[in-house]
Amino acid sequence: MSTRPVLLMIVPPGWGRFWQEPLAAGNVQAYVHGQDLYAPGDIEYALGFRPKPGFLKTLPNLKAVFSLGAGIDGFLTDPDYPRHVPLVRFVDDTLSTEMAQFVVMHVLIQHRSERMYAGAQREAKWRQAMLPRATENTRIGMLGIGEIGAMAAERLRDLGFPVSGWSRTRKTIPGIKSFAGAGERDAFLEQSDFLVCLLPLTPQTHHILNAQLFAGLPKGAYVINVARGGHLVEPDLIAALDSGHLSGATLDVFETEPLPETSPIWKHPKIVATPHVAAITSPAVAAKSVVDGIAALQRGEPLKNVVDLDRGY
Amino acid sequence: MSTRPVLLMIVPPGWGRFWQEPLAAGNVQAYVHGQDLYAPGDIEYALGFRPKPGFLKTLPNLKAVFSLGAGIDGFLTDPDYPRHVPLVRFVDDTLSTEMAQFVVMHVLIQHRSERMYAGAQREAKWRQAMLPRATENTRIGMLGIGEIGAMAAERLRDLGFPVSGWSRTRKTIPGIKSFAGAGERDAFLEQSDFLVCLLPLTPQTHHILNAQLFAGLPKGAYVINVARGGHLVEPDLIAALDSGHLSGATLDVFETEPLPETSPIWKHPKIVATPHVAAITSPAVAAKSVVDGIAALQRGEPLKNVVDLDRGY
Repeated sequence: MSTRPVLLMIVPPGWGRFWQEPLAAGNVQAYVHGQDLYAPGDIEYALGFRPKPGFLKTLPNLKAVFSLGAGIDGFLTDPDYPRHVPLVRFVDDTLSTEMAQFVVMHVLIQHRSERMYAGAQREAKWRQAMLPRATENTRIGMLGIGEIGAMAAERLRDLGFPVSGWSRTRKTIPGIKSFAGAGERDAFLEQSDFLVCLLPLTPQTHHILNAQLFAGLPKGAYVINVARGGHLVEPDLIAALDSGHLSGATLDVFETEPLPETSPIWKHPKIVATPHVAAITSPAVAAKSVVDGIAALQRGEPLKNVVDLDRGY
Repeated sequence: MSTRPVLLMIVPPGWGRFWQEPLAAGNVQAYVHGQDLYAPGDIEYALGFRPKPGFLKTLPNLKAVFSLGAGIDGFLTDPDYPRHVPLVRFVDDTLSTEMAQFVVMHVLIQHRSERMYAGAQREAKWRQAMLPRATENTRIGMLGIGEIGAMAAERLRDLGFPVSGWSRTRKTIPGIKSFAGAGERDAFLEQSDFLVCLLPLTPQTHHILNAQLFAGLPKGAYVINVARGGHLVEPDLIAALDSGHLSGATLDVFETEPLPETSPIWKHPKIVATPHVAAITSPAVAAKSVVDGIAALQRGEPLKNVVDLDRGY
């Protein structure tokens, strides 16, 4: 039996190979679920994204579970999640930076009429136009402004946009207006020309992007969802786009992933759809964070980024 | 005869109406060239972009000329420009911000494979991919890093990219590596995965984006020209794209504008072409800067942003 810490990777087929080397370099014995043979009792740590409900409780000696992403709703929906085992979510600067890049890019693509210019190029037409709305009058609202949302908010602020954030508790970020709690939600929405959802998915935020919320946004608002598909009521979005109340949407996450080929979302002229790529956890970076977390536990030190299972993030 | 300062606008047809109101509010008497009747001797100030060579010298009482944009090469190519009249270039935060937005957006569109995802959406295909190159290994080189280039450089730096700048004199911008002068040009080029041209157009920088410069860039480099069409040798760019040495280019400016429908640039699969819209001078903002400049002169104060006619910017 190995004296090295033993980790089970619960990852899509083919992903294991990206992790094996950095984990071995960190002196961790790693098995891939569904590929390698292992004894459940040997597993001390698990790493994954959305394990099958009930599976984790079959590992009797688990000391910690590491999430492959910043969102951990894929674990919380397991009614048999072993609640005495700390769940660690992955947060690092690379993830926040990639998310900020994605949000900034899609705000700018809309703000700067990029798709119109791409169409004009296909027709070989010189079609010059002023900005439809000045940057200083284009208000960005971040629905959820934790570590990741804050970076996106700051980058948009630095590109001249007025930015605000809505969160459970009030935040102090220079130049960013903070709205807090249910009582300030309507005031937040009515001043959001772009609404960017970066909330954690919890029972309280499930289907928060619905007809009622869209009605509270200014006419012509644009919605970006880079959090979870479960935040959005997809038919409500399509209705608000088709009525002309919303001008468009960028969706990176969906209730069903991969998004089925038959989904009306793919072909909707006002929707930009991307395949959950706003921020991809880098195996090299994430493996180091897992190795560091295991080493801390082995030394008896506290783990960082442990999820509050009751709060849900 | 009016006692208000008298300004002549030399602008494309239809543009005059955007300026009339803010100039009147600033107590300036404004005429539009080619539309209004005026006596040449009454004109004290002129405002424009690319007046016909020889025209400005027909205005005997000119006290200052205001450029509609940050680039003033449209005036310097007039051999009869009245050199005793100060030429003021337009620089304001709005222009720098819009330029930074445009550069950031087009770097991200390439870096984040946005066109690939747009194509996958048209085919209703879930085509997930890792970033072709990590952000921290994607080096941006700003060819020209004055007021406008510096802001674009800082915004890219804050999104995780290593950024450097090349300029005539050395610059000190936190987190941005400075290369200066002809002696450091090759070292600058060989570490630029993205090359962003924001130089002023002068006899020294005319056709600087040529085959020899492209050969000095790393294989797979991407070129963005948001300065002037005169910087670029268009056939050299197309050759470098077709050989595979360069991976792509975004061009906002062209030797002939509007770009003719017959130009091969429109249809080139590796070129993103936009109709000189990276940063559009806002009439309201620019009119205020002209009104302020005139008022300063009338009070006997020095003008800001006066061009050094010998240096060319």
